[in-house]
Amino acid sequence: MAIKSGKQYIEQIDQQNIDIWYKGSRIEGPLSEHPAFRGLIQTQADLYDMQCDARYIEQMTYLSPDTGERVGLSFLPPRNVEDLQKRRTMMELWSNRHHGFLGRAPDYMNTAIMSLYTAADILEEHNPKYAENLRNYYKYCRDHDITLSHAFIQPYSCKLSAQQDTEEDSIAAKVIEINDEGMIVSGAFMMATQGATCEEILVFPTPAPTMCRDVNPYAFAFAVPNDLPGMTFICRESYGASSTYDYPLSARYEEMDTLVIFDRVLVPHERVFYYGDEAYAGRLFSESHFHTHIAHQMTIRFIVKTEFMLGLLESLADEQNVGLEPHMIMNVSKIITFLETFKALRLASEQGASEDKFGYFVPAASPLFASSLLFSKFYTEMVEMIQLLGSSGLIMIPSELDLHSDSGPYLNQYLKGTTTEARERLALFRLSWELGASSFGGRQTQFERFFFGNAQTVAYRMYNHFDQHDQLQSRITDFINKKQ
Amino acid sequence: MAIKSGKQYIEQIDQQNIDIWYKGSRIEGPLSEHPAFRGLIQTQADLYDMQCDARYIEQMTYLSPDTGERVGLSFLPPRNVEDLQKRRTMMELWSNRHHGFLGRAPDYMNTAIMSLYTAADILEEHNPKYAENLRNYYKYCRDHDITLSHAFIQPYSCKLSAQQDTEEDSIAAKVIEINDEGMIVSGAFMMATQGATCEEILVFPTPAPTMCRDVNPYAFAFAVPNDLPGMTFICRESYGASSTYDYPLSARYEEMDTLVIFDRVLVPHERVFYYGDEAYAGRLFSESHFHTHIAHQMTIRFIVKTEFMLGLLESLADEQNVGLEPHMIMNVSKIITFLETFKALRLASEQGASEDKFGYFVPAASPLFASSLLFSKFYTEMVEMIQLLGSSGLIMIPSELDLHSDSGPYLNQYLKGTTTEARERLALFRLSWELGASSFGGRQTQFERFFFGNAQTVAYRMYNHFDQHDQLQSRITDFINKKQ
Amino acid sequence: MAIKSGKQYIEQIDQQNIDIWYKGSRIEGPLSEHPAFRGLIQTQADLYDMQCDARYIEQMTYLSPDTGERVGLSFLPPRNVEDLQKRRTMMELWSNRHHGFLGRAPDYMNTAIMSLYTAADILEEHNPKYAENLRNYYKYCRDHDITLSHAFIQPYSCKLSAQQDTEEDSIAAKVIEINDEGMIVSGAFMMATQGATCEEILVFPTPAPTMCRDVNPYAFAFAVPNDLPGMTFICRESYGASSTYDYPLSARYEEMDTLVIFDRVLVPHERVFYYGDEAYAGRLFSESHFHTHIAHQMTIRFIVKTEFMLGLLESLADEQNVGLEPHMIMNVSKIITFLETFKALRLASEQGASEDKFGYFVPAASPLFASSLLFSKFYTEMVEMIQLLGSSGLIMIPSELDLHSDSGPYLNQYLKGTTTEARERLALFRLSWELGASSFGGRQTQFERFFFGNAQTVAYRMYNHFDQHDQLQSRITDFINKKQ
Amino acid sequence: MAIKSGKQYIEQIDQQNIDIWYKGSRIEGPLSEHPAFRGLIQTQADLYDMQCDARYIEQMTYLSPDTGERVGLSFLPPRNVEDLQKRRTMMELWSNRHHGFLGRAPDYMNTAIMSLYTAADILEEHNPKYAENLRNYYKYCRDHDITLSHAFIQPYSCKLSAQQDTEEDSIAAKVIEINDEGMIVSGAFMMATQGATCEEILVFPTPAPTMCRDVNPYAFAFAVPNDLPGMTFICRESYGASSTYDYPLSARYEEMDTLVIFDRVLVPHERVFYYGDEAYAGRLFSESHFHTHIAHQMTIRFIVKTEFMLGLLESLADEQNVGLEPHMIMNVSKIITFLETFKALRLASEQGASEDKFGYFVPAASPLFASSLLFSKFYTEMVEMIQLLGSSGLIMIPSELDLHSDSGPYLNQYLKGTTTEARERLALFRLSWELGASSFGGRQTQFERFFFGNAQTVAYRMYNHFDQHDQLQSRITDFINKKQ
Repeated sequence: MAIKSGKQYIEQIDQQNIDIWYKGSRIEGPLSEHPAFRGLIQTQADLYDMQCDARYIEQMTYLSPDTGERVGLSFLPPRNVEDLQKRRTMMELWSNRHHGFLGRAPDYMNTAIMSLYTAADILEEHNPKYAENLRNYYKYCRDHDITLSHAFIQPYSCKLSAQQDTEEDSIAAKVIEINDEGMIVSGAFMMATQGATCEEILVFPTPAPTMCRDVNPYAFAFAVPNDLPGMTFICRESYGASSTYDYPLSARYEEMDTLVIFDRVLVPHERVFYYGDEAYAGRLFSESHFHTHIAHQMTIRFIVKTEFMLGLLESLADEQNVGLEPHMIMNVSKIITFLETFKALRLASEQGASEDKFGYFVPAASPLFASSLLFSKFYTEMVEMIQLLGSSGLIMIPSELDLHSDSGPYLNQYLKGTTTEARERLALFRLSWELGASSFGGRQTQFERFFFGNAQTVAYRMYNHFDQHDQLQSRITDFINKKQ
Repeated sequence: MAIKSGKQYIEQIDQQNIDIWYKGSRIEGPLSEHPAFRGLIQTQADLYDMQCDARYIEQMTYLSPDTGERVGLSFLPPRNVEDLQKRRTMMELWSNRHHGFLGRAPDYMNTAIMSLYTAADILEEHNPKYAENLRNYYKYCRDHDITLSHAFIQPYSCKLSAQQDTEEDSIAAKVIEINDEGMIVSGAFMMATQGATCEEILVFPTPAPTMCRDVNPYAFAFAVPNDLPGMTFICRESYGASSTYDYPLSARYEEMDTLVIFDRVLVPHERVFYYGDEAYAGRLFSESHFHTHIAHQMTIRFIVKTEFMLGLLESLADEQNVGLEPHMIMNVSKIITFLETFKALRLASEQGASEDKFGYFVPAASPLFASSLLFSKFYTEMVEMIQLLGSSGLIMIPSELDLHSDSGPYLNQYLKGTTTEARERLALFRLSWELGASSFGGRQTQFERFFFGNAQTVAYRMYNHFDQHDQLQSRITDFINKKQ
Repeated sequence: MAIKSGKQYIEQIDQQNIDIWYKGSRIEGPLSEHPAFRGLIQTQADLYDMQCDARYIEQMTYLSPDTGERVGLSFLPPRNVEDLQKRRTMMELWSNRHHGFLGRAPDYMNTAIMSLYTAADILEEHNPKYAENLRNYYKYCRDHDITLSHAFIQPYSCKLSAQQDTEEDSIAAKVIEINDEGMIVSGAFMMATQGATCEEILVFPTPAPTMCRDVNPYAFAFAVPNDLPGMTFICRESYGASSTYDYPLSARYEEMDTLVIFDRVLVPHERVFYYGDEAYAGRLFSESHFHTHIAHQMTIRFIVKTEFMLGLLESLADEQNVGLEPHMIMNVSKIITFLETFKALRLASEQGASEDKFGYFVPAASPLFASSLLFSKFYTEMVEMIQLLGSSGLIMIPSELDLHSDSGPYLNQYLKGTTTEARERLALFRLSWELGASSFGGRQTQFERFFFGNAQTVAYRMYNHFDQHDQLQSRITDFINKKQ
Repeated sequence: MAIKSGKQYIEQIDQQNIDIWYKGSRIEGPLSEHPAFRGLIQTQADLYDMQCDARYIEQMTYLSPDTGERVGLSFLPPRNVEDLQKRRTMMELWSNRHHGFLGRAPDYMNTAIMSLYTAADILEEHNPKYAENLRNYYKYCRDHDITLSHAFIQPYSCKLSAQQDTEEDSIAAKVIEINDEGMIVSGAFMMATQGATCEEILVFPTPAPTMCRDVNPYAFAFAVPNDLPGMTFICRESYGASSTYDYPLSARYEEMDTLVIFDRVLVPHERVFYYGDEAYAGRLFSESHFHTHIAHQMTIRFIVKTEFMLGLLESLADEQNVGLEPHMIMNVSKIITFLETFKALRLASEQGASEDKFGYFVPAASPLFASSLLFSKFYTEMVEMIQLLGSSGLIMIPSELDLHSDSGPYLNQYLKGTTTEARERLALFRLSWELGASSFGGRQTQFERFFFGNAQTVAYRMYNHFDQHDQLQSRITDFINKKQ
């Protein structure tokens, strides 16, 4: 099996025996029919179908070097600039389909596992078995088109306990025991987005250092199917909906976030990527250029989402006959400016790509870090433009059912626009409301703000990566000391 | 009958035969049991009970000059500074009870009808009958503690049609016919907030001028019960909820907004406050100091809501052990600064109050307009502080049912805080989520932003009210021309 | 002698034998004739003359309790709200004369020395002699209308050395020796604004603590005439000018900043206010309510300066025929909003004044700290409004000499406005340039920004003074735990 | 003659018989010795010398197709992407020499005249003579390395008069008479930056349309030497200085702005580029891609200036030991982000270049317009970072003369830094002061803000150039109407 179809994707998800809880009850029955997941699963099935579609298959797949079958291009480890451009084209096609609203479309984690794979060599000295595990797992994902989520971040109290408590009491995620079959792990992880609508999960916490032990039980990475014994997923409230008229975004793009708990879960040995030495956590991230590869995927998505926001703002302005007012021109020009900026940064990252020590091509990091810094702020600004333009029109909007009810004729009469029918005008306001004032929109805003870490983390990443600090300070010293 | 109890309020609302539609269906059965209204009705009943409570009755009521019975102090037309201070104390008590989240607590419209009443004299020359109607209606509201909503703003297409179409085709609200019993009105109004949870509605559109007729059919004001034949209310989606743990705000403070349609509604003659001459629309607003009195009530509410936001921000910071970080001190100090500012502006409005030509005391307008300009922006800023502090903690929050489910022990183990139990910690995040990222919060943000009109309207109001433009420009001219 | 006239002020300054250096040379001859000081001295003389002017004398002076002569009202230690209002009226008169551009008009330091005086009692337990010295010095200043500057802040390297070095090597200001006549002091102080145009200087550093000595040599406060042996003043570049047409602000309000060096200066015993115990530095500041009294003076000045900026912005807008454009209305309304805010905060500080433990009336601090936080940011915003409005008109402006030259007719022909002559129009642009783009304006902006400390210092002051932190957090806890 | 040396440049400027007025007097004697011009002329001479320097000559020049001599690369009309890259390299070399502080380094106008030349064809239909004039003039400039300034913008009152008055009274620049030798022109122009330090001036006003005449006297473009009879230049106040220690920027980069007056100046026929038909003003600008070519030069300069600001901010932070504080990391990262952005936008403009209808290669405009929009705001932000970091250190700074005076030892003792001597530390603060608080810095800020027009002009340019408005709105319409 290679690239999978939407149908295959749905079947995989439905046949999982996952222990997942929603509002205090364990979900029974197929996820693809559950209101909290149905829309997203449908959307994601559509993405998988694109890969198989004759119109796109050439741009979206390549031949697996191991099986010779067609596999997804987002798994391709880039060997040159052309590979980066192929990856980009593939990711643009998917992003354009979901308009940038899926933060965890499959290409995200495909890129993640690909990047870790490119640095598998560093594990050789740690334990050649781990290097082999990581390579095999990557190939398994690629050749089976595995849909993957990740669990990196632990709850607040776990972080504290890892630092302060004795190991026995600590609730930070750790390896409790190792036996012939594998290692037994307990712990909890915040925010496995799409945890339940994926097949497997990559677990890779940032370990607390231990002082007095040779083997750090907090230091490990592995990947497992979602339905191993001892694994529990707990959902937040769903913003999913069934009417694509009333909820054009959440009916399609609601990616459930889950809290994942490991309670003495047995992780098979062949699925362990490193263990015991916390140095490998940092090295795997940095030497795989994890953040850079991920930021390339992100930036492509930013561009598409910015285009969507621009189209919406102009549509909403025209609907209210203010599209040519100076204030609107200023706002629209500002979005165009940032759109050009994100495009240019993506281009610069590809044009500035260079070969790493393992022979893979890595996009230039600084332009991509720049785009992540700019987007996390500018997204909020675009949302605010829509809020200010939508005004009280984002508050009072009837629903599709109202349009079809006995009071519908009143709505048709009174709620039309200058050139639009009520149905069309209201659809625009419902979309604006979802983005600007609904729970779905609220989560999107938080998600984009903190996608790549909080503002300080992102700033330090940029600061540390910049290598001209000294050179530019010398320029000042020279200037000050220059005679003429 | 005078001040009413919570029980009486609920009975009044429930016994109305209002034609109200929710998601395409007419609501049957008592509103107080409907999930979209229950919480708010309960909250409002509690406010009415306060008036009757021996602890507050002295501060919240006064003796009706007509009946000698106790009536609500927010109906009191101020005759001196002390009256303004009494009004303020009353409104503070109510605001503190709902923490500023009710934009349409009863004192809002009580103040509105009181302010119009103080200018009833101007109607004498128009038609003494109208002046008498307005006075009588005010007394009726005061002496029966009527809960009132208002309908001022018409849908977008109505505004256009009033200007452009022939009168026959126009869908702008207008008087269609006058007969012995009253005048027959058709039209639609956006945004009667709390339309369904009030007993009566004040209708007062801003009329388009007509060129060629002596009597302008778009120019009128009246008040009627909510359940006259031909009146229809259409709701937006409700954000109401039943769990005060999961939805501490929306379970209590969800004020439904409604679209109100008048389809050949017969308005009794004695309920008409003016008709036919659009000049009286502007005069009634300005000579009653409508915006000033209203802004006094608003500013009192702003203070209370700012205090709530400050308490929440500090609680959330402490829960995350960042309460003493410089960045937090800066944010907290900024909120304190604005809190002091709103308090000072309220004080200045009362200390600067003056008697109008009808003998009533009006707070100084400029400080109140200043508070409305500042709050509409600063509220968003406070919400953003909470969003940035809450970070991804506003995304992934389990619900009360999860805590009580079989997976609850995991939550208790992993989601606790440094010194708090999971239940308590999560409650704080749910509250922050409601304010910062939910549909309820989204509506509150839009509501506060546009409460007093859009930014431009509010700015012009301030600009036009300021009377030192010339004086300050002269100071510059003098300065420039000064010799030394 | 009591209040002094402008002439007396000039004579005092001119007869000082001050060791003052400008651009590498010691200044010889009377300061009042030196281009760097002439304008300011003239302006300040005018302020002193106001006190003696029959039109103002009642509002600006009171009878010295010691001499019975008229002394300046800014020396009055307030005993009740009326005293605060009298002080305010006096300070408004002066501020209106200099339009808020003098950060160190005499009422500033008069208020400072008055506030320290009100807390002299705390020195009794330290050394009754010091308490007496402080009281006597205050009376001396008041009864002789002494013009005072201050030196509080030491150069950067001094602060470091006080913490790190041994005492012998430290260059922090310290008492080197004590003898019969007084104590001998060495050290340097940044930023004695108006150092040279005052008669005396109050020296009051924030001392570094010492670990191992009973008597801390860095801990002291005193006041001395400017021309004691061993004192040296070094000026920055002057922005002073002679043409009030070309430089309407700097020709009048250029307050020179000086670096003051004490090189083994003998400070007479009777001029020492405390010595040896660093605890008294903090106590004198806090128990005298130094920052509160000062902030009262400042806030009065902020109001006047804001009015000036408002007048200028509107004049400049009208000159360019954009006074009624929406964007201008927004800006003007914003300034009005802040003007109302500063007025309200001043009022709140007076209305909320309370008696301290020494029986003096202290304005409420929080409203004043709020005004200082707001103004330091808003001033920059007003300057930016003028920069954006003035546009390239702030770049290319001929001078008064050009207008009078042979090429003057060209200027008269081409540089006139719609209704104004070139001379008048250019004057407005020169004023805008001085505020928005000149070195004088640059210093004003920095001065207002850091007047009361940097943003963090001011925020902590506000944070620490606020006493409702716990109360407001409890409100949240109660709310979360409330059942309905 | 081809590229000129610095010496030749100085001689050219000095031998001009220009009628130039400074502070009301006509300047006599060589400009290169006048304090207002000396520094800039020296700096510019240095730039010209670079072109002749063996180290740079290959990168900075090419062979004139007409003379075969070496001419400046900024005159090269690009025929392919490599030409654009050559132009970029040349302009980077000059920019790096002046650190981006010269807004009118010679490559600016060289680029301007080159761009007009590429569109000379459009003049053929107007008058083949004009096309030939423009081509000849470009070649003349290129082959003689002419230093050029421009006069585009007329005084405020001229704009008004062109619209309102009769032609006789209008003071807008116009052709008054045509005779055998040429056309006689009168009028005034604001802001010929470097007017006096160039050899010739390009005059190209935006003409008011005329209704009733075939030939519009306001519509023309021409270029002339600076010293024709009837031409007068009037200077603003100079910020120039001689000490590069005290004034490291203004001693080198002070570009004088001048008001230029034409009083019946005879413009030779062969120097006229179009006349009488206002349509050619707009067409020449747009079809020559004037703004795009110019913005390419600008963006290169922005990058260099941003690097300078970054180096300065980090140097200033380190000098104060705050270089590693979170707040500084945030600011530095923000500058790096924008630096990457400007670099990426420049790259995108070159990579996206395309051939115009005349066969020349034009950089993609949108990325360059984006950079101009971003820089005009971000420059101010960088200046503010320096102001906030420099704090009161930007207020009180002694001068070089003080360091060398008898009070110098005090400065050396007290004003040193942690690891720096007073002299070095003060130099950094003087540089920061020049940028952040001096008249020179004030002009730079205004200049960068309005370099490419005011915010609205720049926004409209971006808006109008964007060609996806409809496409992106259709995407929204499709999305709303999509079934699933």
